[in-house]
Amino acid sequence: MDFTFLGTGAGMPAKERNVTSLAMGFPEYDGDLWLFDCGEGTQRQILYTSVRMTKLTAIFVTHLHGDHLFGLPGILGSRSFQGAETLLTLIGPVGLREYVETSLKLSGTHLHYPIEIREIGQNGPVYENDHFQVETAELDHGIQSFGYRITEKDIPGELLVDKLRMNGVEPGPIYGEFKSKEWVTLPDGRQLKTSDFLSQKRKGRRTAIIGDTRPCASALRLADQADLLVHESTFRNNALKLAHDYHHSTSVQAAEIAKKANVKKLILTHLSSRYQKADQLALLAEAKQIFPQSNLASDFSVFHLVRQSKD
Amino acid sequence: MDFTFLGTGAGMPAKERNVTSLAMGFPEYDGDLWLFDCGEGTQRQILYTSVRMTKLTAIFVTHLHGDHLFGLPGILGSRSFQGAETLLTLIGPVGLREYVETSLKLSGTHLHYPIEIREIGQNGPVYENDHFQVETAELDHGIQSFGYRITEKDIPGELLVDKLRMNGVEPGPIYGEFKSKEWVTLPDGRQLKTSDFLSQKRKGRRTAIIGDTRPCASALRLADQADLLVHESTFRNNALKLAHDYHHSTSVQAAEIAKKANVKKLILTHLSSRYQKADQLALLAEAKQIFPQSNLASDFSVFHLVRQSKD
Ligand SMILES: [Zn+2]
Ligand SMILES: [Zn+2]
Repeated sequence: MDFTFLGTGAGMPAKERNVTSLAMGFPEYDGDLWLFDCGEGTQRQILYTSVRMTKLTAIFVTHLHGDHLFGLPGILGSRSFQGAETLLTLIGPVGLREYVETSLKLSGTHLHYPIEIREIGQNGPVYENDHFQVETAELDHGIQSFGYRITEKDIPGELLVDKLRMNGVEPGPIYGEFKSKEWVTLPDGRQLKTSDFLSQKRKGRRTAIIGDTRPCASALRLADQADLLVHESTFRNNALKLAHDYHHSTSVQAAEIAKKANVKKLILTHLSSRYQKADQLALLAEAKQIFPQSNLASDFSVFHLVRQSKD
Repeated sequence: MDFTFLGTGAGMPAKERNVTSLAMGFPEYDGDLWLFDCGEGTQRQILYTSVRMTKLTAIFVTHLHGDHLFGLPGILGSRSFQGAETLLTLIGPVGLREYVETSLKLSGTHLHYPIEIREIGQNGPVYENDHFQVETAELDHGIQSFGYRITEKDIPGELLVDKLRMNGVEPGPIYGEFKSKEWVTLPDGRQLKTSDFLSQKRKGRRTAIIGDTRPCASALRLADQADLLVHESTFRNNALKLAHDYHHSTSVQAAEIAKKANVKKLILTHLSSRYQKADQLALLAEAKQIFPQSNLASDFSVFHLVRQSKD
């Protein structure tokens, strides 16, 4: 599971940071790929990464502000131009459908693959596939804005074949029962507890993506015990009032969420374009004082989230 | 008058060429600025030029394909963010209004300056200010696509003050009459022909911007006798059928328009992303064989069109 930051700036593109987009890739699962937000210019940022648009299966939009949205129609068209034929699911606030349909219609963009648009009606589950469940909750950003929590399904234990054979159970259809049932009855009448013949299952990874918001209870809930929290950090701590007025968070507020939610790692993104290098480092240092496992995203930085070896 | 190419590629952004946009600046007239087309990422390209969004007074859209349009909402929002308060006029095909209004509404973008949207109803004049007239004609691109001809108003001759004084006409309100009338009657009864007391007027510059199109009569008419013709050249000459099928022009076709229209200079733009450096040079060479004053635009190239010293 890896996270490629395609744009880490707020509001307007800057030379150093483009507006917001984050790719979440699953090389361990057929190389599928999701996007979280899609600011203007995202498809050009992708050219400098290993992200492949044809592998996209879902795009999650946190909210409809332009710096998170205006790159979406271009991505949709280019994905078609590159030959994609597989379903793409778009998830975001009410209004996403009108925006996408109007943009495609007026620009004469004909997609050669199906899209499904899901407008979020309420907090809760919004997406599920073989390996993940995604749930959402509304944040506090003036305009409707959603955070996402991505939970990997637990990875079941593997059959301990040697142990089964030592107990006289030879390979065959019965091995399937050891994966799906609690108890298995052998032809000779013995009853075996399946967990005795499986390695320990591994807990799935948990990630929270918190887009634009003031600090709020929903952010804390979505982030709870996460392995990775990606949180907006538009402002430094000395711009607390500005952050509040514009419905954003400071670095310290993001770090406080990380600490209270007891996450393992925090990545700060969505920095105001007012901050040059020195301010950016200071912003990170402020967060680290509260939560030492804080990191600062920059455009094209990639973070890997490895699977836990045990629960 | 200068032309800054902000994007010179077709269809999809490439590393070397972003999708289409061209800034036309008037340093001789208060630094006003126009854009022709506004592909995704144009506002970020602007960061690498001397173009200032606050100085924009008009944006002309040739057609609504995404590679010419999807950067428009971002430009509108950022121009406001940068403090612009002056009117911005948007001109383009029917559908421009719905696209702009939908994008601004759904993204919650509130502009702190007025915009006027003019959807083109028919060929002819579409815009005029103190110094220029702009007319348009429909091209041949499958989707409705407009070319533009920009005609600078003739620059009137200047008063020959020394000659007036030698004839006993001292500075005063009467000098105004020499600029506005054909004949002036002096207090002593003499009648003077004003053209004898003015330097020669200078012919305004004529530019044609021909966006996506097959070669067509409208392109030829708009380009007639122009000082500068900017013409799309998506394909090389060996892709003639492809150009026709996709409603585009080859380099040779663009050069033929330039030659037939008897323009002074041709700039080719809107190149297919399939072409690497060698093909780009070959594309230019093909055009030069037909029309020697051919040039190839690249991203961030700037062309100056100086005022003619005489008619
Ligand atoms: Zn926002
Ligand atoms: Zn086109």
